[in-house]
Amino acid sequence: LDEGDDEAVYDLVEPLHPADIADLFELVEREYRGPLARAITDLLGADVLTELNDYVRDDVIDALPAAQVAELAGQLETDDAVAIIEEMEEADQRAVLAELEPADRAAIVDALSFPEESAGRLMQRDLVAVPEHMNVGQLIDYLREHADLTTEFWEIFIVDPQHRPVGTCQLSWILRTPRHIALADVMKRDQTLIPTDMDQEEVALRFQKYALISAAVIDGAGRLVGQITVDDIIHIVQEEAGEDILRMSGAGDGDINEPIRQSYSSRVRWLIANLGTALVASSIIALFGGAIEQLVALAVLMPIVASVGGNAGTQTMAVAVRALAMNQLTQSNTRRIIARELRIAVLNGATVAVLTGAGTALVFADAMLGGVIALAILVNIIIAGMAGVIVPVTLDRLEQDPAVASSVFVTMITDSMGFLAFLGLAVASGLASF
Amino acid sequence: LDEGDDEAVYDLVEPLHPADIADLFELVEREYRGPLARAITDLLGADVLTELNDYVRDDVIDALPAAQVAELAGQLETDDAVAIIEEMEEADQRAVLAELEPADRAAIVDALSFPEESAGRLMQRDLVAVPEHMNVGQLIDYLREHADLTTEFWEIFIVDPQHRPVGTCQLSWILRTPRHIALADVMKRDQTLIPTDMDQEEVALRFQKYALISAAVIDGAGRLVGQITVDDIIHIVQEEAGEDILRMSGAGDGDINEPIRQSYSSRVRWLIANLGTALVASSIIALFGGAIEQLVALAVLMPIVASVGGNAGTQTMAVAVRALAMNQLTQSNTRRIIARELRIAVLNGATVAVLTGAGTALVFADAMLGGVIALAILVNIIIAGMAGVIVPVTLDRLEQDPAVASSVFVTMITDSMGFLAFLGLAVASGLASF
Repeated sequence: LDEGDDEAVYDLVEPLHPADIADLFELVEREYRGPLARAITDLLGADVLTELNDYVRDDVIDALPAAQVAELAGQLETDDAVAIIEEMEEADQRAVLAELEPADRAAIVDALSFPEESAGRLMQRDLVAVPEHMNVGQLIDYLREHADLTTEFWEIFIVDPQHRPVGTCQLSWILRTPRHIALADVMKRDQTLIPTDMDQEEVALRFQKYALISAAVIDGAGRLVGQITVDDIIHIVQEEAGEDILRMSGAGDGDINEPIRQSYSSRVRWLIANLGTALVASSIIALFGGAIEQLVALAVLMPIVASVGGNAGTQTMAVAVRALAMNQLTQSNTRRIIARELRIAVLNGATVAVLTGAGTALVFADAMLGGVIALAILVNIIIAGMAGVIVPVTLDRLEQDPAVASSVFVTMITDSMGFLAFLGLAVASGLASF
Repeated sequence: LDEGDDEAVYDLVEPLHPADIADLFELVEREYRGPLARAITDLLGADVLTELNDYVRDDVIDALPAAQVAELAGQLETDDAVAIIEEMEEADQRAVLAELEPADRAAIVDALSFPEESAGRLMQRDLVAVPEHMNVGQLIDYLREHADLTTEFWEIFIVDPQHRPVGTCQLSWILRTPRHIALADVMKRDQTLIPTDMDQEEVALRFQKYALISAAVIDGAGRLVGQITVDDIIHIVQEEAGEDILRMSGAGDGDINEPIRQSYSSRVRWLIANLGTALVASSIIALFGGAIEQLVALAVLMPIVASVGGNAGTQTMAVAVRALAMNQLTQSNTRRIIARELRIAVLNGATVAVLTGAGTALVFADAMLGGVIALAILVNIIIAGMAGVIVPVTLDRLEQDPAVASSVFVTMITDSMGFLAFLGLAVASGLASF
């Protein structure tokens, strides 16, 4: 690429699998992505684009002229084309849409009319839907005769005259059934219908719960308007499940291909929030300045109380955030989970308190100091356990994402309560005075 | 249930979807799971069992006699039966295996011979494999005639005389092709083969990368021995992606249905490890006891430096752990990612340092103290950014799970370095002396 020898580059890349070409784009430095895209435009099939990381795809798409992007989008399934076009700037979007075939354009404009991350954006319009009265033989003939039908389907949808889905039929059932049998006798009537406005996270949970391979998407009037297939869902499951770890740590999107400025702005926000919570903890310490001057051991030991409490809080919080994301923690079992976490916190707190208390009493030759730190740790771990469930559950009830803001609150609680319990008990026990 | 009125319970549960019956078991208190299972044994089909959370399933299975479990296992696909039986105690395992039909028993014993979490455990043995010379019509006739074949398949595998896979054929292609065409002309030769000993996480990544719906599993000699379908993969993706958040926080399995004793023992281990790292930080503070006695503001401010550094380290670590899990962070781009994180750390560090430094200088009316804390924060955030990438990458190179132990190391580094930088700079600048 450095030598501008595009042909040599082309020859090198040509034998690769589309998914591996996608990997190649992710591996090269950002400034090479444009030239590489231009050098191997012919090889940039739909299957390469769908495999690309979102940020890398933006780099690639930016390097290509609108006509080229439109041609690629035309080859893609609607959902994949939408994924590419929704990320573009408005002017570029219009340029690409103008170059598209009218049918493709209509489908994409229609999809863009649904809210982001909804089933309407995710669905593809190409599907096979047939009336109830067909039999297996007629269906097979219909499929063979209509060359323009999609080949990307795993189930047939059976619809009534109003185009409302009444059942689905796995292809394997059709292949194993004699021609004269009616579809109505083979199909499964019990199906999972997805409204166009359902959130993609909820769609993914349905797919998992009912082990679906594809599902019918219906509009407000109950008419079949598209299908969602499991290959699109697997990416969502991966993303949503992985997002929580990044959100909890305040790392924003957390993609290694995200531009630095964007990573900076999403992360620094949380660092500043963290600074705020640290100030709360600091002002509690400041209250006990006199006590620390009298007994420096307090300054040496206080971070232990806060740190262990913070860790215990994070553990419980991770469990709660995960259970909320998977719909396992609901109104009906919240109390039971809080009771469960309380019991674990008492066990954990007692263990760590005994260890730290005994160690401190020995090292500082001061039994009272050992007792104070042990009690402070027990109290802080119990508070941490409660905060670790109650904070994310409360955020969830308020329809906030529990993964995003829980950390800040829980850390603030465990830090402040840790310092308060330890320094407060030290003063109360007469080890030091204000 | 309390009244022992099993019939009424049965009538209430009967109309529910299997996945909803599974949810019901998860919602009721542990002690009711056994009685509930005994009351509705007839409704406990294979589809309920496969949807149950692992811990809840153990409760249910424990309540049923071996003959009942064997009957259920016989209805399940091999992979699901194995998932149930591998969790049982050895004596119970033997009892259930003894009750199974010989063919089912052989398949399950065979599956149990593969390592846990390997493709061999995950695969199902039921699949449709046909020779190359068949044409579409012959295949359809074969499928119609052999009533004992599985209906759970999405692709046909085409094999050579040695039973080695040579291609796959989506069912939709077969349905759309005239009878006289040879399968060899319809099938896709380029396929993703999974060796029986591949780790399930790696299998899941292949499914995502190549958007597979099912894949052939081969033994050491390259012979087709089973298939893995995407519905089993979606659970693995969910689990593996979600596990990292729990591992990073040291919450073990982190399942809300896990017995309390197990949660206690997995969490307390990490709290004790955390105690160890807190001791390192404390001993650094102890070195500066004299300085703190002279200037209590140091004790008030030092947690801020450690806390912000810890947060910055966790952000970077979450990004790195996630990128490692998705195979995005590899040998070839490690250096680039470290350089990227360094730049973000400098930006974040400078922003937070200026804010904190200015605030401190104002509140304490001490410009030197402001300068010291600003510099300490900048240094600690840069160290945190580097540690956040280097620690997980190093653990990964040593073939350790980066999600498990990174936290402890990174926290130790950011806490210790935070205290050392701040207190050390305070002494070096002459604000206080040892």
